[in-house]
Parts: sequence; structure tokens; C-alpha cells
Amino acid sequence: MTASTPLQSPSPTEDPLDIEHVRRVLVRLEETIIFSLIERAQFCINAVVYEKNAFGDVLAGHSLVGLMLHETEKTHAQLRRYTSPDEYPFFDDLPPPILPSLSFGRVLHPNNVNLNARLREVYEHEIVPFICPPGDDQQYGSSAVNDINSLQALSKRVHYGKVVAESKFRRDPAAFEEAVRRGDADRIATAITDLPVEEAVLARVKRKADTYCRELTPTNPDVPLADAVATIYARWIIPMNKDVQVQYLLQCCAD
Amino acid sequence: MTASTPLQSPSPTEDPLDIEHVRRVLVRLEETIIFSLIERAQFCINAVVYEKNAFGDVLAGHSLVGLMLHETEKTHAQLRRYTSPDEYPFFDDLPPPILPSLSFGRVLHPNNVNLNARLREVYEHEIVPFICPPGDDQQYGSSAVNDINSLQALSKRVHYGKVVAESKFRRDPAAFEEAVRRGDADRIATAITDLPVEEAVLARVKRKADTYCRELTPTNPDVPLADAVATIYARWIIPMNKDVQVQYLLQCCAD
Repeated sequence: MTASTPLQSPSPTEDPLDIEHVRRVLVRLEETIIFSLIERAQFCINAVVYEKNAFGDVLAGHSLVGLMLHETEKTHAQLRRYTSPDEYPFFDDLPPPILPSLSFGRVLHPNNVNLNARLREVYEHEIVPFICPPGDDQQYGSSAVNDINSLQALSKRVHYGKVVAESKFRRDPAAFEEAVRRGDADRIATAITDLPVEEAVLARVKRKADTYCRELTPTNPDVPLADAVATIYARWIIPMNKDVQVQYLLQCCAD
Repeated sequence: MTASTPLQSPSPTEDPLDIEHVRRVLVRLEETIIFSLIERAQFCINAVVYEKNAFGDVLAGHSLVGLMLHETEKTHAQLRRYTSPDEYPFFDDLPPPILPSLSFGRVLHPNNVNLNARLREVYEHEIVPFICPPGDDQQYGSSAVNDINSLQALSKRVHYGKVVAESKFRRDPAAFEEAVRRGDADRIATAITDLPVEEAVLARVKRKADTYCRELTPTNPDVPLADAVATIYARWIIPMNKDVQVQYLLQCCAD
């Protein structure tokens, strides 16, 4: 058992909704996210990789990143990635798993919350220009490979909000019941918000990113990468994670 | 232009064989390798992902990692990854590129040096057991995704030996000519070896890995990960890179 055993590990001794388990997963995901953003930031923005049909007809209507993401998700779907309750695809036309299913037990209520379309938009048009040097270095394939890694890590972090919300709800259903019954998203958002925890996350991410960026030559001196990573958490990751929590609770906890 | 512009960037101002350029690429690749090994090491060895047909007939004769690597290389080949002089595939039945070719100029002599079969063997059976906690945590997909990232990073580092060798040869052809003419691999190996440089690489990798592992909870207390990364450089990466240099010089510089 590793210190960072993800949700899908069907360990008989560890409850995937236990708040300490959830916390360990989220803390370890910080490395995955920071490493993948550092890797992407060594290449220029290369905006052409996000443009549909930028290379003529060869990309079948996708952008270069879209094609690579789609092909990657097809393979991962066959290897049952999206049967896990903490993995959500960007595409909905994926093949069924070829591996036998794992049993996860009932972790989450059935729901269709998926913020990946918004995440991809934000990533391609706000996060990449925020961390990468401007311009085009023709490293399209390398950029795209790191985009896939970053998008998958960010998606997992954002959608872990479902697990966080389910865990909070089970500990204290009364705190949410009336707001959920009324469909009051603002009140649910207030109930799930814990500002001291958010501040602790941001401080830890900033400290880690400072450490991990220390050896690197800055590629985009206008925005130091360690500061950029903390800002990405504050501006996009934490808010989208909270949106997932609210949408999940609205869908799932009214019964 | 980033500090780590890889070889394939057809910049008019930077010679891909310039020794300072080569050095910058290799130094930046250290992050890619260390990050990918840290990511893999959070999961158990999961030996089953390296066993052919471990899941019955569904993997088409591959292991789980083999299937994912093959599918990944098919997509990357279509996006012209292996037209770059510093990228070599593990499989030889890949589709042609769908993107138009980039012009790299003549960087390397034509050659068929490819140590990926040996690298994959070493990685799956020596490196993974060296860095990962023993046992099986059922995180097969996550392990395999990180295996692909690690294998691709290690392959690039090992095969960069071709660029290193070409650069050394062009600076001082006389130092190699007789050994190459005689096919004397041992003498070529001596001529390309620079022990102070190797020691500096190992010291830098150890320092970086110490930094990058500082925030992590050790998953395999028997082998501290930072020490393991430095050992992997000393035991496998540097020797295989030198093998590539020798084989390349034997094939290419006899004319």
C-alpha cells in the first residue's frame, strides 16, 4: 500500500471516502500536476496545436492535441481507465474495456457531472499562455504529449470534487439537506467551502513549486513558473473542484 | 527559443551538434526522467503489467504495457515523432506520418542503432523493481501510463548518444579514425569516455533528485528514491548512452 493509493484501489482496509485518504490523494496529485506543467512550460505556446484542421484535412476535424487526446483516451478506455470512479474522459465516443472489470463498491452516487469541456478550454487558452513562452518552436508533438499528461492530471484533480463532496455529505448530511432540496447552489457552495484549508493548499503548492522550479532556467521570465502554478490552483483548479462538488451534491443527494 | 530547445527545432541560429546545445538538452532531460520515475514509483511493481497475455487473449499477444506502448507509438508516429533524429520507437510496425515532414538538415549519418529492446528489458525487470514498492496495488493503468512516459524519456536520453558521438567526431575526427577503421569498440569506448563529466552528471542528478523527492512520503524505504535515481544513471543510462555512441561511430564514421 503506497502513501498515495488512489481511489480505485479496492483495499479492504482503506475507505476511499475517509477524509485522510482523500487528503493524501489530493496532496500527491500536486506533484503530478506541478511536474506536468513544468514539462509543458519548457516549450512555446505553439498555438497551432490547438487549432482544428490547422494541418489541412489530416487531423479528421480535430486539433493536433484533440487527435492525440482522443487516440489516448481510446486506448485508456480499452484498459478500463474510465471505469474508475475518479477518472473522467474528455470524449464520449470511446470503446468499451477489453480488460475484466474491477469492483469498486459503491463510492459515488450515479451522476453525469463532467467539467472536462470547460477544463480543456481553460487549459488551452488560459493556462498554456500563462506558463509557456510566447511563440512557436515547432515542438508540436512534445507540447501535445505534455498537454495530454497535464489535462489528465488536472481533470482527475477537478473531478475528485465528487469524492470530496460525497465524503463531506456522509459525515454531516444535515448541513446540506435543505440547500440541496431547494437547489440552492450558492448555499451549497458556502457549505462546502473551507477557507483555511484552501489557504493551506495554496501555501503548500507554492512551496512545492518553488522547490521543483529551483533547478530550471526560466523560460518565461514574465511569469515565474512557481508563482504561476499557485495562481493556476487559486484561479482554476480549486474553483472548478468546488463547482464539481456543488453540481454533484445537487444531482445526487436530493433523494 | 527556450533554454531546452530540443534537437528537432530547426532554428537557423542554433547548431544541433554544438556541444553547449547538446549539454542543455541533456541537462533538461534530467527533469523529465526524474519526474517520470518519481511518478512511477508511487505505484507498486505490479509485475502483471509486464507479462504477455496476463489477462487472457484480450491484449493481442502483448503485455498490458506493451499494448499501451504500441498504441501510443502508432499515434505518435502519425504525428511524425520518429522523423526527428532524436526519437526512436520501440516497435517497427508503425504507420507513416500524417503531418507534413519537417526539415532537420543532415544531423546524423544514416544508421540503424536502436537499443530500445534492451532498454525495455532493463526497465521492466531491473529499474521498476528497484524504485517501486513490491507487490500489487491493482493500479495497472496508472503504472502503465507512467511506464510509457519513463520509457520514452529514457530512450531519448540513451539515443542522444548518437548526437553526442557525431558532435565529438566532428570536433576531432582524428581521435576516432584509427579505432573506427579497425572496428575496435573498446578503443572507441575509451576515446568517448570523459570521467569528470560523468561524475558531474551523477552529482547533479543526485542533487536534483534529492530536491525533487524532499516533499514525498517514501513508498519504498529500502531504497531512497533520490539515491535510486542516481544509481539508475550510473548503472544503466550512462553505460547505454555510451554503447549508443560506440555503435553509432562504428556504423557511421568509417567512410
